[in-house]
Amino acid sequence: MRRMLTLDFHPTGRHFLQIPGPSPVPDRILRAMSLPTIDHRGPEFGALGLRVLASIKQVFKTRHPVVIYPASGTGAWEAALCNVLSPGDQVLMYETGHFAALWIKMAKRLGLQAETLGLPGVEGWRRGVQASMIEERLKADTQHAIKAVCVVHNETSTGATSDIAAVRRAIDAARHPALLMVDSISGLACADYRHDEWGVDVTISGSQKGLMLPPGISFNALSPRALEASRAAKLPKAFWAWDEMVEMNATGYFPYTPNTNLLYGLAEACDMLLEPASGGLEGVFARHRRWAEGVRADVRAWGLEIQCVDPAVYSPVLTGVVMPEGVDADAVRRLIYERFDCSLGTGLGKVKGRMFRIGHLGDCNDLTLVAALAACEMGLKLSGVKLAGSGVQAAMEYFAGHPAPVSLAKAA
Amino acid sequence: MRRMLTLDFHPTGRHFLQIPGPSPVPDRILRAMSLPTIDHRGPEFGALGLRVLASIKQVFKTRHPVVIYPASGTGAWEAALCNVLSPGDQVLMYETGHFAALWIKMAKRLGLQAETLGLPGVEGWRRGVQASMIEERLKADTQHAIKAVCVVHNETSTGATSDIAAVRRAIDAARHPALLMVDSISGLACADYRHDEWGVDVTISGSQKGLMLPPGISFNALSPRALEASRAAKLPKAFWAWDEMVEMNATGYFPYTPNTNLLYGLAEACDMLLEPASGGLEGVFARHRRWAEGVRADVRAWGLEIQCVDPAVYSPVLTGVVMPEGVDADAVRRLIYERFDCSLGTGLGKVKGRMFRIGHLGDCNDLTLVAALAACEMGLKLSGVKLAGSGVQAAMEYFAGHPAPVSLAKAA
Amino acid sequence: MRRMLTLDFHPTGRHFLQIPGPSPVPDRILRAMSLPTIDHRGPEFGALGLRVLASIKQVFKTRHPVVIYPASGTGAWEAALCNVLSPGDQVLMYETGHFAALWIKMAKRLGLQAETLGLPGVEGWRRGVQASMIEERLKADTQHAIKAVCVVHNETSTGATSDIAAVRRAIDAARHPALLMVDSISGLACADYRHDEWGVDVTISGSQKGLMLPPGISFNALSPRALEASRAAKLPKAFWAWDEMVEMNATGYFPYTPNTNLLYGLAEACDMLLEPASGGLEGVFARHRRWAEGVRADVRAWGLEIQCVDPAVYSPVLTGVVMPEGVDADAVRRLIYERFDCSLGTGLGKVKGRMFRIGHLGDCNDLTLVAALAACEMGLKLSGVKLAGSGVQAAMEYFAGHPAPVSLAKAA
Amino acid sequence: MRRMLTLDFHPTGRHFLQIPGPSPVPDRILRAMSLPTIDHRGPEFGALGLRVLASIKQVFKTRHPVVIYPASGTGAWEAALCNVLSPGDQVLMYETGHFAALWIKMAKRLGLQAETLGLPGVEGWRRGVQASMIEERLKADTQHAIKAVCVVHNETSTGATSDIAAVRRAIDAARHPALLMVDSISGLACADYRHDEWGVDVTISGSQKGLMLPPGISFNALSPRALEASRAAKLPKAFWAWDEMVEMNATGYFPYTPNTNLLYGLAEACDMLLEPASGGLEGVFARHRRWAEGVRADVRAWGLEIQCVDPAVYSPVLTGVVMPEGVDADAVRRLIYERFDCSLGTGLGKVKGRMFRIGHLGDCNDLTLVAALAACEMGLKLSGVKLAGSGVQAAMEYFAGHPAPVSLAKAA
Repeated sequence: MRRMLTLDFHPTGRHFLQIPGPSPVPDRILRAMSLPTIDHRGPEFGALGLRVLASIKQVFKTRHPVVIYPASGTGAWEAALCNVLSPGDQVLMYETGHFAALWIKMAKRLGLQAETLGLPGVEGWRRGVQASMIEERLKADTQHAIKAVCVVHNETSTGATSDIAAVRRAIDAARHPALLMVDSISGLACADYRHDEWGVDVTISGSQKGLMLPPGISFNALSPRALEASRAAKLPKAFWAWDEMVEMNATGYFPYTPNTNLLYGLAEACDMLLEPASGGLEGVFARHRRWAEGVRADVRAWGLEIQCVDPAVYSPVLTGVVMPEGVDADAVRRLIYERFDCSLGTGLGKVKGRMFRIGHLGDCNDLTLVAALAACEMGLKLSGVKLAGSGVQAAMEYFAGHPAPVSLAKAA
Repeated sequence: MRRMLTLDFHPTGRHFLQIPGPSPVPDRILRAMSLPTIDHRGPEFGALGLRVLASIKQVFKTRHPVVIYPASGTGAWEAALCNVLSPGDQVLMYETGHFAALWIKMAKRLGLQAETLGLPGVEGWRRGVQASMIEERLKADTQHAIKAVCVVHNETSTGATSDIAAVRRAIDAARHPALLMVDSISGLACADYRHDEWGVDVTISGSQKGLMLPPGISFNALSPRALEASRAAKLPKAFWAWDEMVEMNATGYFPYTPNTNLLYGLAEACDMLLEPASGGLEGVFARHRRWAEGVRADVRAWGLEIQCVDPAVYSPVLTGVVMPEGVDADAVRRLIYERFDCSLGTGLGKVKGRMFRIGHLGDCNDLTLVAALAACEMGLKLSGVKLAGSGVQAAMEYFAGHPAPVSLAKAA
Repeated sequence: MRRMLTLDFHPTGRHFLQIPGPSPVPDRILRAMSLPTIDHRGPEFGALGLRVLASIKQVFKTRHPVVIYPASGTGAWEAALCNVLSPGDQVLMYETGHFAALWIKMAKRLGLQAETLGLPGVEGWRRGVQASMIEERLKADTQHAIKAVCVVHNETSTGATSDIAAVRRAIDAARHPALLMVDSISGLACADYRHDEWGVDVTISGSQKGLMLPPGISFNALSPRALEASRAAKLPKAFWAWDEMVEMNATGYFPYTPNTNLLYGLAEACDMLLEPASGGLEGVFARHRRWAEGVRADVRAWGLEIQCVDPAVYSPVLTGVVMPEGVDADAVRRLIYERFDCSLGTGLGKVKGRMFRIGHLGDCNDLTLVAALAACEMGLKLSGVKLAGSGVQAAMEYFAGHPAPVSLAKAA
Repeated sequence: MRRMLTLDFHPTGRHFLQIPGPSPVPDRILRAMSLPTIDHRGPEFGALGLRVLASIKQVFKTRHPVVIYPASGTGAWEAALCNVLSPGDQVLMYETGHFAALWIKMAKRLGLQAETLGLPGVEGWRRGVQASMIEERLKADTQHAIKAVCVVHNETSTGATSDIAAVRRAIDAARHPALLMVDSISGLACADYRHDEWGVDVTISGSQKGLMLPPGISFNALSPRALEASRAAKLPKAFWAWDEMVEMNATGYFPYTPNTNLLYGLAEACDMLLEPASGGLEGVFARHRRWAEGVRADVRAWGLEIQCVDPAVYSPVLTGVVMPEGVDADAVRRLIYERFDCSLGTGLGKVKGRMFRIGHLGDCNDLTLVAALAACEMGLKLSGVKLAGSGVQAAMEYFAGHPAPVSLAKAA
């Protein structure tokens, strides 16, 4: 007699997973992942490896190597740091929110001198990276002691998508040789991202957001400068080391055991994202922008504040909803979860209990989002929050009034 | 190079299957169905067979045999007729809608004298079975020429759930020996159904509605009188014959090859439906009633008519929404499908183009339904239909104001 | 707390399903079958329907309609009979074994005058159809009272694959207008089969053999003459009726609910069978012939008799192994099942307990068969059966010495 | 139009994955892994986390924390080293084969002073750890400069399973405080392993061997002394750091995103391994011992040498088969793969081209192994290798003559 896993404590129906990642995984990817595991040294694996390594480059918009780790995203942060830096190296890290702060904490733990930049207090968590602050700081670093500038592309804790091209321009304007390292864990394959064009040296990403996979795979996209820097870097590394990876990847294989079944999923995910009939990557970005706009129309109609206060950097991936004074965001979330079988993201760090986050990423459509917004609206009312109007109505009006650019494409 | 099946022509997200069956299949059942096929003459199959045969009796609320056919529902209609009747036999069939009409057509095709009872015109398609008409007709049949009374429990084409106990009382009041045969294809495991208590002789059902399975399995629940009648019945039958089935089922096996992988799904489905922590069958019925109430609150708020005009027989399974004069219901459905990735049921037969049907059955929850109603509301507005108010708001108010009887139960 | 299905009573490893069907289902097909159920009246289904209806014609080698039933194979037998015949019609049925006998029994049950032809006693179960006997009988039927000749292509109970072209020639030689009806349930997609070229009027088949699907789908391939005959045939029919099927299939849809998820599997199966890089259907036939040859090399080495005594009609699908006098074949089978996790086919009807059957069909390869033969060899020895030599060695020699015609093809 | 992954280049049948890991994954685990991804901060995940954390302790036979990494096994090697050691620390590492050598290489790369112990040349790769050499070396280290002793339990490259209890006794006999660190990546859940009883401080393991999961999860089982050492250790670490892991695991959660879908698989795997009706862990060990014995009977019958020359440490997990002089083991492997759809392990490092490895682990049974041995026997003969006799016959005799201790248990 065996017990089965209980993955949903509600009696019926499908859970609405509206956290900003792990995102809902398409059925097609889940099925691909469940195919039998193959020999990671055999001919079939070589073909699979070459395929995913080629596809993922297109997703990062790079011609340079992308390292695929059989490890979740936090590992790729560490990988990026330890491959190009040496103990005691100085790095300039911009704090846009909780995940930027965690990365800074990690850098310090690894023995780096991490200098934090950012607007003061909670204010800094409501905007994107201020490129001018980076430029100013780098100009002051006339000795070029700073080895790398680290920023988060899409800050998952707040819903602000920083302008990475502007950061590149700031570094260039300061004529500073620091490497540009970007965390696009939750941005990639949701928000426009251009590793090569924007002159990024290392981009970190993960599987469980725009790539619509379960967690367990993460990435470092490299630049030639990053590869060069890695040859001199002295932080200890083995599992994360790029050298053997890049060398073996040339034939489609990996130096140690890869995450075979998740790679099946990655192959499917890339096919879906790059599918011309669905609009390819530009279609992906357009869909996320439109969903985000609909969700923000809802929040405005409720009369609630959006965590990100700069419309220029509104995230296409998630929206933070600030609670009125005196309302415990986590109590609202719990009620929504219990009553309506919908998971939302909690407020993290400085904004714990003050806001919740709605994910609008991955395998999603208008109705999924309307349902999630309905769960929020019902939950907020049941929690006694006074709403200015119906956000759900506003979102419906937005979605009905703005057809998706590519709406019926899979048939092609 | 292989082509994959394209099961959704929309570029992303999960389809909302809101037709009144096939209903959305829980992930757990889909996974169970994909396990390797076993020997249908081996020991494991015997254990599986005994298990599903025992469980399905509980679902029908019967102590008598339930025959499981490896065939879809239409076959079970034919099975019911050909096992108890002889060529030229007279049967009294009540027309509540399109599916009742199709069954009548089948009876005639099989060479039976099928007499149709029902209220005239479209009116008959907006109400349940009028038991008094049956009583009256049977009383007039003093020679007992009528061999069986056939009614549809939940008329899938209209959304009316007839009172089967009342039909039983009508037959008894007429002191008539006719068998009572009931189609509960879409009623079983959604609406309360009691094969034994209501004195039903043959109940017909299928897998793809309340049982939450894909189509491919169907049922005949029997009574001792039905079994006795089958011994004298002369309509030719082989595949549908009860005798060998009932005999072999005693050991868990079937006379010919059963639908093995769907039986895996049936075992899971019965476990889910009978799960005490989720409220068992009574919990299932309560959930469907509540969902239906929410959907009707929506339709009323729109100011549109519900196809079923008798609140006493409102269906917990589906709701028919009548279009205002001049609106083509199928054009609205098509727009909703194309724009919002949601399938609704078409109007059938007499009401073709005049209404559409919203299914609220199977693996469903409040948010699934709110999403479907939002799709309808957006689609109706985009089609130029004037709505009195927001049905989605009304449904949200209903769902928020009426917590489900068992809402967080799977954990137990 | 939920109980999971136990589909293998052995503690570890994958069961070897070596019965002559249901055959082992490829992982790819099982995964396809587990995708979410779609609306059988929606656009995606239409595309799926057209695809499977076109593919299955290629498998039958016909240009005429193939009817797909959402029912297991026994149903397709009934369908074939009731669509072209009338009560009391005379049919000539050749008994090659247990399944032919079951079909004859069904014909009688349906009210047909089924005349059985065949060699006497067990002898008839060790050879294929004797076409000359059919010719002779038809010549004697100068009134053309016989409406149809029914034969089994691959007799699953014995392992003889009859020469259908010869039966056609026999009917033609007799200048008799009887329809030719062929059961190729276990022959199709294993043994060469040519519906049009051989002038077959109705071919019956099922999903769970060469098509490598679970049971639950069955087929009637038609000829123009069969379609014409169906218009006059008087046996009652509804579910099995061809007319509405053929009409609706033109657009990819079905008159009643089809077996959606098994159709996903059918689409995959046809892709696999018709794949040019794997040799297409001719590759499929060549593989089965080679496997059968290897298995027979084994049985000969054991010094045991093969059930089929005519090498011209040895089945490429299965091999019947006759036990020495005094050995209970079923006791041997049980021991093999219990000790070695391998299922074999039982002896049926006249040969119950006298032989067992080894299936070599479906998703199979040389090692699967060597393993099954090893299970038999170990089981026979443990049962005290004296063997002349090692069959496993003989099979290994055969397989090593005769490379498969297309051995490494999927990569293309 | 989408392309599917081609995971087997052979036209039909199931691949025989007989490498010493990744091992064949049971269907039940593959299905569990394909269930929808859940919120790793939600209530369901907490229940899942507590369950797998409790179960995995039983598998390691420990009462102390086991850290689960969302990373493949090589990562867990690094984790073990960097959590308890500081830059420049001296470690004593015993080289039993290629994987031990890789671990030594990693330790050096991480900046440790790794001293290699072992028998000279290829000889060291044919035996287990010589505990006396460790004792001797530790006794000489009177200053206790050596911080840790590192050994491999089951050397996957050779097929020797070292006596870990003896290593513990050696350290104790030397009264040396060095930590004992053991790689049981391929030993765990195949060969008997007792983390607590044997006084191991850190055990490293992975998912893709005895646990029968795809790669992607790895483990560090800890001791109180290891935890204490970790508080002073200075190697940089973040992703691998135990402290936050152990702290958060108390409630079933993880400090960063876990490998959710593989954890579903882990829950199933532990259920299967610990299942009392299948004999629990002792049943698992007994099955592997028996399989290994059968495989060795085969190799002896061929007249070929087994890589491991010490019967006391024969591995229950895999067997290395040494080729006669002049035979290229990899050419034999390639032929076996191409002709018989079976993957074997290559010779690694010092024994490249000289031997191949047969895995007998994971979801396996007698027939799987006989099939793999038949592939080897046919492949060896086709490669022109002279064999003394039929190994397959010897294996069959062994398996038939030695029934498994628990052979029909799943039914319970």
